Amino acid sequence: MVRRADGEARVSDNGRDAAAWIAVDWGTSRLRAWGLSVENDVLWREAADIGSRRLRHDDFEPALLSFLAARLGPGRTLVLVAGTAGAREGWSESPYRRLPCPPLGPPGQLGAVPAPTRDARLDVHILPGLAQAEPPDVMRGEEVQIAGFLSLNPGFDGVICLPGSHSKWALISAGEVVGCAGALTGELYAALCDHTVLRHVTATGEGTAAWDGPAFKDGLGEGMASPDKLLARLFALRAEGVLGLRAPGEARAWLSGLLIGAELAALRGYWLGQNLAVLGAAPLAGRYTAALTAQGAAPIEADGEAMALRGLIAAHARLAPH
Amino acid sequence: MVRRADGEARVSDNGRDAAAWIAVDWGTSRLRAWGLSVENDVLWREAADIGSRRLRHDDFEPALLSFLAARLGPGRTLVLVAGTAGAREGWSESPYRRLPCPPLGPPGQLGAVPAPTRDARLDVHILPGLAQAEPPDVMRGEEVQIAGFLSLNPGFDGVICLPGSHSKWALISAGEVVGCAGALTGELYAALCDHTVLRHVTATGEGTAAWDGPAFKDGLGEGMASPDKLLARLFALRAEGVLGLRAPGEARAWLSGLLIGAELAALRGYWLGQNLAVLGAAPLAGRYTAALTAQGAAPIEADGEAMALRGLIAAHARLAPH
Repeated sequence: MVRRADGEARVSDNGRDAAAWIAVDWGTSRLRAWGLSVENDVLWREAADIGSRRLRHDDFEPALLSFLAARLGPGRTLVLVAGTAGAREGWSESPYRRLPCPPLGPPGQLGAVPAPTRDARLDVHILPGLAQAEPPDVMRGEEVQIAGFLSLNPGFDGVICLPGSHSKWALISAGEVVGCAGALTGELYAALCDHTVLRHVTATGEGTAAWDGPAFKDGLGEGMASPDKLLARLFALRAEGVLGLRAPGEARAWLSGLLIGAELAALRGYWLGQNLAVLGAAPLAGRYTAALTAQGAAPIEADGEAMALRGLIAAHARLAPH
Repeated sequence: MVRRADGEARVSDNGRDAAAWIAVDWGTSRLRAWGLSVENDVLWREAADIGSRRLRHDDFEPALLSFLAARLGPGRTLVLVAGTAGAREGWSESPYRRLPCPPLGPPGQLGAVPAPTRDARLDVHILPGLAQAEPPDVMRGEEVQIAGFLSLNPGFDGVICLPGSHSKWALISAGEVVGCAGALTGELYAALCDHTVLRHVTATGEGTAAWDGPAFKDGLGEGMASPDKLLARLFALRAEGVLGLRAPGEARAWLSGLLIGAELAALRGYWLGQNLAVLGAAPLAGRYTAALTAQGAAPIEADGEAMALRGLIAAHARLAPH
């Protein structure tokens, strides 16, 4: 900041104070970045729908540069990245750590790999994901949210649910992730709404701000009761739209409920009778919490973005000096 | 045809002999047309990947004109259309006939509606689909295949399976369609391969000509045994790809098997213990036949395109002179 002659603070010409380092959570559908001071105070926060799924290897650096244009200082800045930017199809592949293990590696063994950059201002390191051999499962990005949550709840044993494009359920014991399972729920929902005949019935709900709670609950109940009928139920939704049996606006909520219900049914063994936490963003996390609560569970809910930032800060503290 | 001086037949300048009428099966993903003589001999056949899902109301006539450019005579030609071109989002909505009913209406009550055209050479009529109120279901195009099949097998009682973008199962009794159920299997398969993270694992099989039969059978078994685990199993396929547990080329076949297995499980009540026929195109119809056969059923298989043409000819014979 620069003081003006009249004493008012103003933003300097080159943007804001340069961050000591930058934390990035780069997921399938969204990119979030925080500029942090040496004391890990948040100087700024940016978010955009620049998901890794839209990018090829060579697109990541230009995307980040254009996203952070006004935020970079003239010198070299450490950028610590978690998420699918570290996938094989991402910016630069970072290896998986194998379960069971703590969500972050210990100091000096964090496993972050440097990503190739052309711009001398960027010093990018990408955190590893976690992998389970049997049954096969992987996560990238969720592990920093889990680390952030466990830093606040160090004694937590139970199951953490992380809704999203790829929902994730992680079994936690004694500070370690001992098992995980995923579901394609969010991405399937988007693909059905955008790229199948269901777009004709779900599109009628777009632009209507209100979420149809009863329709969601109805779909949820059907998904939980008959997850084995999913393929037939999806076409029936189209038929209901054609025959005027679904009021405009309710189909999206009903479909969301159906898929979340089918996910809960498919992964019932993961959450039934467990100590539960849901990490995510409103309104989706709230829907999972409500669905689990309706099943007699008592999940605690925490903001996924806040947990990701805490986890990235914890990871940064373990990064070997370089 | 025009005879040349040397006696050789040649194609006339304006293409071929003009058809007396044109039969069109215009589905979600594909358009097929046949030029027919007064005696219903096939003069020509055309097919293209101009599915109705890619078109808006005003696109249908230009698409058909460009598709049939060389086939139209100078006069007005009757074009009889079945399929999703008659849907609300299609060329012109033709109403549904309600089950139970024969697959085609009787002469004079066929229910075909004229579609608006600008080109005076086109006289387009679109056949109605069939609808079931409870549970809600609809079909458009399948009914002409069913009519064609029943014209060859007038005594058939049982269930007709029509695989495709939207699979359809129709319960036939005494020449009537008395019930039907659909599944979004084909379109879901395409959306998963093209618009979700599964593209990374399924794309490895593209361009490899061979179909991985054992992988298909493996996925089929899993889909039939655990249709309620579908959402989790879809993400596990991604994880298997990431961890190198799926050999290139096998993921597409496995996924196809998984979804068809889940469809058969969802609609088990439709086919178990029934007299069965599968109408469709190789290789998909063959996969359904093999899957049903593995379950102890003994389906007969017929070519869906040939059945559609027979059904359209039967419909044409019932069309009121105009």
